Amino acid sequence: MTELIAEGDDVYLYLDQKRTYLVKVEAEKSFHTHKGYIQLGDLIGKEYGTQIASSMDIVFVAMKPTLRDYIFKSSRRTQISYPKDISLIIMFSGISSGSRVVEAGTGTGALTSAIAHYVKPAGKVYTYEVRQEFQKNAQKNLERAHLLDYVELKEGDVTQGIEETDLDAIILDMATPWLVIPHAYKALKGSGVLVSFSPTIDQVVKVVESLEDHCFMCIDTVETFIRFMQVARGKTRPQTVMTGHTGYITFARKSLPAPPVPED
Amino acid sequence: MTELIAEGDDVYLYLDQKRTYLVKVEAEKSFHTHKGYIQLGDLIGKEYGTQIASSMDIVFVAMKPTLRDYIFKSSRRTQISYPKDISLIIMFSGISSGSRVVEAGTGTGALTSAIAHYVKPAGKVYTYEVRQEFQKNAQKNLERAHLLDYVELKEGDVTQGIEETDLDAIILDMATPWLVIPHAYKALKGSGVLVSFSPTIDQVVKVVESLEDHCFMCIDTVETFIRFMQVARGKTRPQTVMTGHTGYITFARKSLPAPPVPED
Amino acid sequence: MTELIAEGDDVYLYLDQKRTYLVKVEAEKSFHTHKGYIQLGDLIGKEYGTQIASSMDIVFVAMKPTLRDYIFKSSRRTQISYPKDISLIIMFSGISSGSRVVEAGTGTGALTSAIAHYVKPAGKVYTYEVRQEFQKNAQKNLERAHLLDYVELKEGDVTQGIEETDLDAIILDMATPWLVIPHAYKALKGSGVLVSFSPTIDQVVKVVESLEDHCFMCIDTVETFIRFMQVARGKTRPQTVMTGHTGYITFARKSLPAPPVPED
Amino acid sequence: MTELIAEGDDVYLYLDQKRTYLVKVEAEKSFHTHKGYIQLGDLIGKEYGTQIASSMDIVFVAMKPTLRDYIFKSSRRTQISYPKDISLIIMFSGISSGSRVVEAGTGTGALTSAIAHYVKPAGKVYTYEVRQEFQKNAQKNLERAHLLDYVELKEGDVTQGIEETDLDAIILDMATPWLVIPHAYKALKGSGVLVSFSPTIDQVVKVVESLEDHCFMCIDTVETFIRFMQVARGKTRPQTVMTGHTGYITFARKSLPAPPVPED
Repeated sequence: MTELIAEGDDVYLYLDQKRTYLVKVEAEKSFHTHKGYIQLGDLIGKEYGTQIASSMDIVFVAMKPTLRDYIFKSSRRTQISYPKDISLIIMFSGISSGSRVVEAGTGTGALTSAIAHYVKPAGKVYTYEVRQEFQKNAQKNLERAHLLDYVELKEGDVTQGIEETDLDAIILDMATPWLVIPHAYKALKGSGVLVSFSPTIDQVVKVVESLEDHCFMCIDTVETFIRFMQVARGKTRPQTVMTGHTGYITFARKSLPAPPVPED
Repeated sequence: MTELIAEGDDVYLYLDQKRTYLVKVEAEKSFHTHKGYIQLGDLIGKEYGTQIASSMDIVFVAMKPTLRDYIFKSSRRTQISYPKDISLIIMFSGISSGSRVVEAGTGTGALTSAIAHYVKPAGKVYTYEVRQEFQKNAQKNLERAHLLDYVELKEGDVTQGIEETDLDAIILDMATPWLVIPHAYKALKGSGVLVSFSPTIDQVVKVVESLEDHCFMCIDTVETFIRFMQVARGKTRPQTVMTGHTGYITFARKSLPAPPVPED
Repeated sequence: MTELIAEGDDVYLYLDQKRTYLVKVEAEKSFHTHKGYIQLGDLIGKEYGTQIASSMDIVFVAMKPTLRDYIFKSSRRTQISYPKDISLIIMFSGISSGSRVVEAGTGTGALTSAIAHYVKPAGKVYTYEVRQEFQKNAQKNLERAHLLDYVELKEGDVTQGIEETDLDAIILDMATPWLVIPHAYKALKGSGVLVSFSPTIDQVVKVVESLEDHCFMCIDTVETFIRFMQVARGKTRPQTVMTGHTGYITFARKSLPAPPVPED
Repeated sequence: MTELIAEGDDVYLYLDQKRTYLVKVEAEKSFHTHKGYIQLGDLIGKEYGTQIASSMDIVFVAMKPTLRDYIFKSSRRTQISYPKDISLIIMFSGISSGSRVVEAGTGTGALTSAIAHYVKPAGKVYTYEVRQEFQKNAQKNLERAHLLDYVELKEGDVTQGIEETDLDAIILDMATPWLVIPHAYKALKGSGVLVSFSPTIDQVVKVVESLEDHCFMCIDTVETFIRFMQVARGKTRPQTVMTGHTGYITFARKSLPAPPVPED
C-alpha cells in the first residue's frame, strides 16, 4: 500500500547532489531556500518521491529519508565519507535484527542510529557517553530518525566497566579504546565481535595489543576509501574531491580461554 | 543465556587469518587439516569461542559464523574485497528489518544472503536468476546460512519485467542493468532505491543515462577500496596485497513525474 | 664549494607546510607576511638553508628552490597532487639529459619546466600552444626557473602537424589528444614514447583507439594517487585531505609497420 | 639521425603487456619463447621499433629499452609498483643533470639506475652497500643499462659516516635510516634534500623524529598508489590487481642552525 506524507513526517528535499535538506512537514510552514520557498503543507497526502515547485518554479523532490540521510545530516563529520566506515562496521560486526549491542561513545548519535536501524525491532543498543551535552543532541537525532525506542542512552564511562553481559557486539569510537578491552571481554558472549574505530595508527597498535592480551582472535584492521564518480557520456571521470582518511577499523572476536595443552 | 554448539550447527574454525574453515558439526565426524584432525563431536555442548586442539596439538577456535563468514565462503569472488561493496549497497539502499527487496541476478547468493540477513524476520528478498544451475547453489548457500525463509528464489529475467510492486529497493548485479530500469521504476514505491553494481565504466554510463531518462533522482556512482593493515609494534604497515577494482556502485531513487510547470 | 644567495636569486621561504613563498632576493626590498616582514637584503651572501627572523621574530628558512617548488608555485592546479603525475610521465617517457621532446599544450609551463629540467643541458623541449596569452605566462615561469634556454615556445596547433622529427618523446596534455596521434607517429623516432594526460575516461578510450590504429604498442593507462601523512609519535595518521583525481596517463611506444606475414 | 640496432645492444622484446623480455642482441644467437624462437641476428641494422616474427609467425616488437624497462627487469620487487615511488623520489629530491647524490643501500641497483639516469653525464651517484654480494649484481645491472660511468659503488655502512660532502641529495632505502641522519646533515649542502623510503610506519616515525632533532625542515611523508586501467570501448575498467603498499617516502631539507633569537 502506498505510504503518504503526513503532518510531522520528515522529508528529504532534493534539488541536486549538493543541495539537499532534511525538513519536518508542518501544514502552516514554508521552507526557504535560495531557490524560493516551498509550502510544506502542499506535501501532506502526497506520495513520497513527489516533485514540488518552489515559489521560483524550481523543482524539488520530496524523498522519504533513509538511514543515510539521517546520518549525513546529523553532523558535519559524517558527510561524504563516514558512511563507508559505518557500513563496514555494521557488516563485519555480524549484527542484525534482534542483536544486543553496546556502543561507546555516543557522540552525535550517527553510528548509534545505524546500529539501531539494523537491530530493530527486537534488538537494543546500549550507548555510553561521558559528556552529558552530547547525549541530548544524540537523543534528538535518534528521535527524529524514529530509532529512539531501540536505544538506551547511558551516561557512563566504559573504561570503568560495562553493565550489560552476553552481548552480540561492542562497537567503540572513542579516544582510548584499549582501556575498554578487559571489560568488553567480560560483557561479550563467546564468539562475540569487538569493533574499534580510531583515527591514529598509535591507537590501533594499542588496541590490537590489548586484544591479543585478552584472548580475542580473528583480529583484522582495515581502512576504507570511497570515491565518487561524475558520470555523463563524454565527460565521465572520478571526482576531484575525496576524503583521504577518516580512521582505521579493527575487528576481533572473543575466544574462550585455551584448554590445558597436553604435554608432548 | 549462553548459546551452545549443537549437532548440525556450523562453526567457523579459525587457525589464523589465512586458514579458516566453515564446518558443519556432526558427532561422528572429524575435520582434517594440514595441522591434524579435529573431533567435531567434542564441540557439541561447548560455548561458541571455544578453543579446541587438533590431533597435532594445534589450537583452533570454534567461532559462531557471522554473515561475513558465510559470504566469504560462498564463492571465491567474494573473498577479501566484495564485502566492502555489499556493506555499502545495504546501507545506501536504506533497507532494514521488514523491507521488501528485489535482487537480480542471484549468482552465488552472497549478496542475497546479505540482503536477507538485514530484512529478516518480517521482510523478503525476491531474487531473480535466469541460469537454473546457479539457483541450486544459491539455495544451498542460503539454507546453510539459515536465511532461506526470507528469500523467494525466482527463475526469470528481470529485463522482461518484475512481478513485485511497491518495493523498498531493487538491487542489480547483472550484465545489462540498463534494460531493467523501466521495469524497476514501476516496481518500486515512490522514493524507493535502485542500486546497480557493474565492473565496467561503460555499464555505469548506460545505467545512469537510463535512470535519468526514467525519472530517477539522487543519482550517485561510487567505487570503494579496502586495505588491510598488518599491525604489530615496530612492524606496522599496510598489507602489500590489495584488490584494485571490483566494480562501481550506482544508487538512485524513484521520483514521481513532475507536476505541470506554470508558465513564466 | 658552498653556493651563496646572490641578488636576483629566488629563495623558497619556508615557515611551515602551509606557508611557503617563492621570492626574488632584492637588496632594498622587504617581503611582507602575516608574521612580519623580512629584509631580503639580509639574505645576500648567506648560504642556502639559512634561517632568518622576521620583524615579529618569527623564523623562516631560505631554501634554494627545487623543481617541485617552481611547479607548485606556477599554478594552483599543480598544487598538492599534480607532481605525482608529472614525475611518472617523466620516468615512463624515458627521457634524460639530451633528449628531444615535443609537448602540447604549454599551459602554465609547469610540465614544460619539468621536461626541461631533465633534458638540460643538451636536450630540448619544443612546446606548442595555441593560446598566445598562455605563452607569455609560461615564458615568465620558465625564465624564473632558469629553464628557458632549453625550451622553444611555439605558437601552433599540434592537431595540424608537428614540425620536428626523430623525437625521443611526445607529451600531450590537451583536450583532443587523439587528433595528434598520426602526426606524433611521424614525428617520433622508432620506439619513441608517446604520453597523454587526460582527465576523462572518454578521452582515454579515444586516445587508446587511435594509438592502436597507428601502430603504437606497449600501451598502458594508469592513474596515480598520493596521500600525505601526519607523522608525530602518538598522533601518526594519514591526512584527511586528499585529491581524488587529476587525470589518467596513457603511455605508448612507436612500432614500425609489421613485416608481411607469411601465409599459413 | 635514425639509430639502428647493433650487435651487443639490448632490445626490449614486446609480445603483450605480460610477456616482455630484455635481451642482448648477438648475431649467432636465437631467443626462445613459448611462441617460438627469434633469430636475434636478424635485428642487427634494423631501426628500433621493428616488428619481427618468431619461428611460429608470432610478431614481437624490438623496442629500445628505457629506464623503466631496466628497472622493471632488475628485480622482482620493482615490478609493477615500485616505479611510482622512484619517480616521485627523483622529482622531490630536486636532482637533475650534474647533481651529486649519495644513495644507501645499493640493493639491486634499481634506484641507483634511476638516479644515475637523471644526473648523467656530469653528475655522480655514490652508492653505499654493506653486503658485497649485492654490489656485484648491482654493478651488472648498471653496466647493462649503460649507467656505470656515473656511479661509484662503495662498500660501506652509512650509519658509520658518509665520506662525501656538499651533496645535492641523499637517498636512503635501508632498514635503519634514522641512524644516518646526523651524518647526512654534515654531508649535504645547505638546503640539500634528504629522502628516505621505508615500508613500516615505525621507521617513518623514527626518521622524522631524527630529522626534527637535526635541523631538517620542510619535512613531508607520503605514500603513493598506481592503478592500471584496462581500456577498450565497452569494456573499460580499472584492473583487479593492484599493489596495496610498497613503502612511505619521507622528504626533508637541510636548514642551517637558527640565529640567536632576540629576547622578547
